[in-house]
Amino acid sequence: MSQKLEMLYEGKAKQVFATENPEEVVVRFKDDATAFNAQKRGSVDLKGEMNNAITTLIFEYLNEKGIKTHFIKQLDEREQLVKKVSIIPLEMVVRNYSAGSMAQRLGVEEGIKSPVTIFDICYKKDELGDPLINDHHAVFLGAATYEELDEMYELTSDINDILIDLFDKMNIILVDFKIELGKTSEGEIILADEISPDTCRLWDKDTMKKLDKDRFRRDLGEVTEAYVEIYNRLKTLLNK
Amino acid sequence: MSQKLEMLYEGKAKQVFATENPEEVVVRFKDDATAFNAQKRGSVDLKGEMNNAITTLIFEYLNEKGIKTHFIKQLDEREQLVKKVSIIPLEMVVRNYSAGSMAQRLGVEEGIKSPVTIFDICYKKDELGDPLINDHHAVFLGAATYEELDEMYELTSDINDILIDLFDKMNIILVDFKIELGKTSEGEIILADEISPDTCRLWDKDTMKKLDKDRFRRDLGEVTEAYVEIYNRLKTLLNK
Repeated sequence: MSQKLEMLYEGKAKQVFATENPEEVVVRFKDDATAFNAQKRGSVDLKGEMNNAITTLIFEYLNEKGIKTHFIKQLDEREQLVKKVSIIPLEMVVRNYSAGSMAQRLGVEEGIKSPVTIFDICYKKDELGDPLINDHHAVFLGAATYEELDEMYELTSDINDILIDLFDKMNIILVDFKIELGKTSEGEIILADEISPDTCRLWDKDTMKKLDKDRFRRDLGEVTEAYVEIYNRLKTLLNK
Repeated sequence: MSQKLEMLYEGKAKQVFATENPEEVVVRFKDDATAFNAQKRGSVDLKGEMNNAITTLIFEYLNEKGIKTHFIKQLDEREQLVKKVSIIPLEMVVRNYSAGSMAQRLGVEEGIKSPVTIFDICYKKDELGDPLINDHHAVFLGAATYEELDEMYELTSDINDILIDLFDKMNIILVDFKIELGKTSEGEIILADEISPDTCRLWDKDTMKKLDKDRFRRDLGEVTEAYVEIYNRLKTLLNK
């Protein structure tokens, strides 16, 4: 079923392969897990399959809601076919509640609901540890123009609105998430990469149990179970 | 000459004293120098006197140019009388060239002229190391509203325009600087704190010699001489 040619790129959790169509690539989701700028490394059973399936469901849902994404179709348990884009080297982070690096940076507890939606941008550069930057830095670096940043924040905000509502229906609080955006060959900015428990903080509303990669980062146990739980709730909600 | 009552606050480089007028305080400039979040400590001969004199000349100049500041008058070699304000817990940093923490964060050389003016805001919190934050964090923390931030950036930008020109006439490149803003009892946002070689990066245009606190931070020698040099050039230019 796979249409893979040579590997173009290998990241921490995914591989990207060329296809016969220069406008399309295959993404393969791995079980490998890293945290804290790859200082912690491990593997989570079934993670690749779950993230492929979850990203498929979420990107299809976002496509239906009018969000442009790179997603074309799922190929098999670990692979999906996507439009080839050039990834903008900025992680777009959205925070609805304090957690993780932001809670540490500001010296606040985790789990405080923010009165405003918090957007962070981080410069995708492993050797620098993907540092938090601001719009001026991004423009200085040539990563984006102010106009592109405006468009990127708007797209990110629209995705947040849709996802808050989607996860709410699954009895889950969307604490925060990060996305990556890419430019198509026509210069259009669209959603790329993945949306999964690797890239979101997802807390069960009743128990506040973490159902995301923090279970791996913080050695909380039941890591695979969390990914499966998210997949099952999503599949049930969307009748897939 | 001093009108000091009890000390209200002692910072790394200054002390603040009450006066008989509840709307006014005395600022006393110390020779103490710290760097890297006070991990490096020392003392620079004459620094207190120079920074008092330099800040006096610059704040008087800014006042003449229509910038509202807390400055009232110099009292003696180490002290000045200023309006009492409540300091907004955000350092406003302006960068015209890459240097210091920004160059490190972005992995770029120092001394690159930025095509856009770079504004950083840092959360004034010693125990967190005054971290870089963004507007959303500042609002989350309750440090300022979005509207206040707009006003603060505009004021900071106006000050940058005036200072670039002032230092240019002294044959100096204003690489970057940080200011602190305060709110008066009427809620007006005005310039407070100091502007001096402690808070600016100042490079001689011909020799690129650093004439600022980096001489202390980086053990470059001739620290006092740099502060005296800035004072002398400023005094000559302004005919004071």
